[in-house]
Amino acid sequence: MTIEDVPTTATSPTWIERGGTPAAPGNSRLRPLGLREVTLRDGFWRQRQQTNRAKSFAHIEYWLEKAGWLGNFSAPPEQRRGREFSDTEVYKFLEALAWEYGRTRDPELARRHRAIVARVIVAQQPDGYLNTNFGRPGQQPRYSDLEWGHELYSYGHLIQAGVAAARTFGEDELVAAAVRAADHVCDVFGPGGIVSVCGHAEIEPALAELYRVTGNRRYLEQARLFIQRRGHRTLADIEFGRGYFQDDVPVREAGSLRGHAVRAVYLAAGAVDVAVETGDTELLGAVARQWRHAVARRTYITGGIGSRHQDEAFGDDFVLPPDRAYSETCAGVGSIMLAWRLLLAQGDPRYADLIERVLFNVIATSPADDGTRFFYANTLHQRVLGAEPSADTQVPRAASTLRASWFEVSCCPTNLARTFASLAAYVATADDDGVQIHQYTPAGIATTLPDGREIGLEIETQYPADGRITIRITTTPDTPWTLSLRVPDWAAGATLDGLAITRGLVQTRRRFTAGEALVLELPVRPRFVAADDRIDSVRGQAALVRGPVVYCLESVDVPRGVDFDALRLDPNAEPVDRDGSVVAAFRSVDFTPHDWPYQPLAAAADAGPPMRIPLRPYHRWARRGPSTMRVWMPLSSER
Amino acid sequence: MTIEDVPTTATSPTWIERGGTPAAPGNSRLRPLGLREVTLRDGFWRQRQQTNRAKSFAHIEYWLEKAGWLGNFSAPPEQRRGREFSDTEVYKFLEALAWEYGRTRDPELARRHRAIVARVIVAQQPDGYLNTNFGRPGQQPRYSDLEWGHELYSYGHLIQAGVAAARTFGEDELVAAAVRAADHVCDVFGPGGIVSVCGHAEIEPALAELYRVTGNRRYLEQARLFIQRRGHRTLADIEFGRGYFQDDVPVREAGSLRGHAVRAVYLAAGAVDVAVETGDTELLGAVARQWRHAVARRTYITGGIGSRHQDEAFGDDFVLPPDRAYSETCAGVGSIMLAWRLLLAQGDPRYADLIERVLFNVIATSPADDGTRFFYANTLHQRVLGAEPSADTQVPRAASTLRASWFEVSCCPTNLARTFASLAAYVATADDDGVQIHQYTPAGIATTLPDGREIGLEIETQYPADGRITIRITTTPDTPWTLSLRVPDWAAGATLDGLAITRGLVQTRRRFTAGEALVLELPVRPRFVAADDRIDSVRGQAALVRGPVVYCLESVDVPRGVDFDALRLDPNAEPVDRDGSVVAAFRSVDFTPHDWPYQPLAAAADAGPPMRIPLRPYHRWARRGPSTMRVWMPLSSER
Repeated sequence: MTIEDVPTTATSPTWIERGGTPAAPGNSRLRPLGLREVTLRDGFWRQRQQTNRAKSFAHIEYWLEKAGWLGNFSAPPEQRRGREFSDTEVYKFLEALAWEYGRTRDPELARRHRAIVARVIVAQQPDGYLNTNFGRPGQQPRYSDLEWGHELYSYGHLIQAGVAAARTFGEDELVAAAVRAADHVCDVFGPGGIVSVCGHAEIEPALAELYRVTGNRRYLEQARLFIQRRGHRTLADIEFGRGYFQDDVPVREAGSLRGHAVRAVYLAAGAVDVAVETGDTELLGAVARQWRHAVARRTYITGGIGSRHQDEAFGDDFVLPPDRAYSETCAGVGSIMLAWRLLLAQGDPRYADLIERVLFNVIATSPADDGTRFFYANTLHQRVLGAEPSADTQVPRAASTLRASWFEVSCCPTNLARTFASLAAYVATADDDGVQIHQYTPAGIATTLPDGREIGLEIETQYPADGRITIRITTTPDTPWTLSLRVPDWAAGATLDGLAITRGLVQTRRRFTAGEALVLELPVRPRFVAADDRIDSVRGQAALVRGPVVYCLESVDVPRGVDFDALRLDPNAEPVDRDGSVVAAFRSVDFTPHDWPYQPLAAAADAGPPMRIPLRPYHRWARRGPSTMRVWMPLSSER
Repeated sequence: MTIEDVPTTATSPTWIERGGTPAAPGNSRLRPLGLREVTLRDGFWRQRQQTNRAKSFAHIEYWLEKAGWLGNFSAPPEQRRGREFSDTEVYKFLEALAWEYGRTRDPELARRHRAIVARVIVAQQPDGYLNTNFGRPGQQPRYSDLEWGHELYSYGHLIQAGVAAARTFGEDELVAAAVRAADHVCDVFGPGGIVSVCGHAEIEPALAELYRVTGNRRYLEQARLFIQRRGHRTLADIEFGRGYFQDDVPVREAGSLRGHAVRAVYLAAGAVDVAVETGDTELLGAVARQWRHAVARRTYITGGIGSRHQDEAFGDDFVLPPDRAYSETCAGVGSIMLAWRLLLAQGDPRYADLIERVLFNVIATSPADDGTRFFYANTLHQRVLGAEPSADTQVPRAASTLRASWFEVSCCPTNLARTFASLAAYVATADDDGVQIHQYTPAGIATTLPDGREIGLEIETQYPADGRITIRITTTPDTPWTLSLRVPDWAAGATLDGLAITRGLVQTRRRFTAGEALVLELPVRPRFVAADDRIDSVRGQAALVRGPVVYCLESVDVPRGVDFDALRLDPNAEPVDRDGSVVAAFRSVDFTPHDWPYQPLAAAADAGPPMRIPLRPYHRWARRGPSTMRVWMPLSSER
């Protein structure tokens, strides 16, 4: 079967022409735009997208060869290298190449893509099975370790790569391989087959997306089965409990996202896909409810998720220690996947609020400026000076306190690569009556509504450095249509063309004129923020946020002779913008040395003389060498 | 070789007569007393010691059989059950039986001991090797996995059990097996042998103690070699880093206890033993410095250590989250082993201060009242209601939020058993000029000074319920001698016979009269305590401590309709003793529901009307069924 053989269900069959997009529901409130419908212009995100292409791609290819993970596909079983899921890094890189091609049409990318695909598909068995870690002589049998084997997870990324290829290159060898793999999965795990799920979700959104590409309902039905089975304790119990892989409670009954954070958001993304395609409003509502719970009680101020190193997991409500924050980069990627799907399905701007937080404070934080080193985890409080791993070294995943080149579990470089390559997709959407702008970054948008009306826009802004956003209409029909703009949750006091607007969505429906512009003013000013009082670990502390960007205090900015740990923020002194930093007022306390750190409760010690210290965007931290760092700053008792 | 063949170095060769003792340096400032020199009378600790004997011993034997860990010694390799270190639970139980016999001379204990020893020693190879998990057909080769194999750790516990047997039963089959094992270790890891260490320290104190029993310096030298080798990165790097098994920095160069907490304190205990026996004051000073650092910056208010679930490890300085406290029961046991050795070596009462904290708040907390369920980890903040595991179930180690019968890694039941059986040893010591009392519990003490003077004392007290401690002299020479009493660090305002005394040691040197009594009054009153301000996770919170006992707030004591998480302590209202609890004043705050838990910094919300709620000793928590619990209570903004 090829993708031409079957009808598509997508609202538009022209994804190739439109540059592809990473999630294309056939039935949703908002319609995603293609990577050629939104073009990033010079600015914060385009710079990162270019570094991704110019530097990270080569870095990833180098490491996939060096670590042997690409070679595994043709190596004999006894020479296989890497962890059980290493195949997926190759697939995620293929996905990144596809999106980058979709957006640029650079034939060099197609050549690299084809070359890697050719090396991968030789490992596919006649029955569609493809995994370098199982089933060959000397290896564990296929599907003998569903808890930890990651076989279906691997197919998930293979299929996602196939979907990306189908939407950008069109039918190719990879698409065919993905279809063969999906058919194999349906054969083996479908009705009458193995009644179980994979320890790591990912096959679920992948199969749903493959259904969207091929129109073959078998894949959707299999995704639905996997979602339905999850939570019925078919997987073995483990030390972390079945909640680790969300097999403790059925998806539609759970109260919150929980367990391993990446698994949780990938699964929830798949559940949204299935809910949307099958019209299962109960399931969609359940996931939305879990998302709201997790955002309100289990999410860091950076938008990061996962507060436990032990199992890379969500903690209980309000357990969000900054100094042991895990906030895995890949959980940020997955969190965007999930929030994006919910946004398309429901249109609620709070989903885009979260995407913005994650983009500016997790996705932008992980990679080094040169795109060849990465934070695996994103702590909010670094207590000791980290050590920079040497450049050409593979390190354990989260052991490094500074950005590292490559990891034994190296999921973040490729996950970032596919995210940066497809970043334009998250800027805006369309519906029958107009365009919705969700993220503010310099960009050109050109799309056609289902009724054929063409709309062109330019977003002109220095955001997030500045809050002025000009939306210039470049192409418009002469009939009325609606332009929707997100007003972030933090943006109390925003204006549109000088008029006060409320937070949420501001919708302008009228006849527009080509050349006219709307000016949205978001109050991008430094502001101190406190946490819900149940987050014990940051009680008596404040963070500084400016627009969507979380700031931090780094020891390299602290005057010599001042004890970093003794600094106390004076929240009554107005923080002041200065050259990309924000200067805040601090005092320094003296610590009484004690043999025992628990002493009779006494009035807080007076703080010392005031001093002014710059705070920097959190995403810039540790870019000037090792430093200690705090997002949450203890408040002076002088306040 | 038998233990009769060689000279002993101990200050007294009469350990058997004196009931044995768990650490007997040949050269130390204070001399430990034997388990028949100190007899616990009815009170807090004797009750627990009796439950240990009456209930926990049978429970442990039942589980050692049921889990197959005792059967492993005679089972064929393919039928071996349990984790790689399961042999040691049998050894630790043998050690417990020996101490219990030493104190009681109950022949039933000797019979049980002999029966188990007979089943164990059949597994010892002709060359002394003894481990059910390695070296047989189908198993990994001997010493092929020093990082994780725990072979030397297992010998350590075998040898400790042998030492306990030698000091209580005298020479027996187990002592002979321990000697054979020690000789084997010296053969294999001594000069010319494998130049490495074990991933889990324990062989070090064991060999030093066996030297003390046998006088064979080869064991001391081997212990010294292991201490010397540690920290030179001979073990492989692992995800947790080499600090996990203290192989990152040499013992005498490290700045703090670090890494896996049980490993850290066992290693340090061995280092003290080696330092003391070899006169290595630099090494002793290094360990004492590390201990001081860890107590001042890496220890919970309960005395518990290990703030990280991930690797059961110390965190960085001041990373002591109550809600993710690990505070492993076994780390408490090891912490007492270490502090006791330092106390014997240096005489500083702060070591006994810590032992007291650990005894009342970790050791007393773990076991259920019936001695058949245990906390593996001892959290200081339980946020969600735990689920009671069913009684006859083996659970993963720290997954349970309530006390469990047995664990896959079941180190705490046997570690507690040997600690309770030998508890009397920690009450008092002697030196050339008198007796030092370190722990206050009803007890009779009868010992003979090296010059032959006999001293008898009775400690009469309701401590810690009450602070009045009467030391009655029952036997005394007619020459002057010194009675030293520890005045705990928290006991500002203590008196001796009505006279104010300072904290630390109060020493009375004079001629005593039989029948006379000294009365020590410790100010056992509820007091609020705050943490060093660098422990961010408890900023703005207070704990209640009464004498050495930490208290806690449990949801079962909170009036219906009051949100446990909303309670705020009013530290200005005097806490009041009432029926074993302490009643404190609280207010309740309202939480504004938010979709996003980070909102502009505002003045603290007013608290609601005052209410009075009882706090209970932390060691009593979760004894009335599932409950949420806090040791650290947020302070009302009304203060």
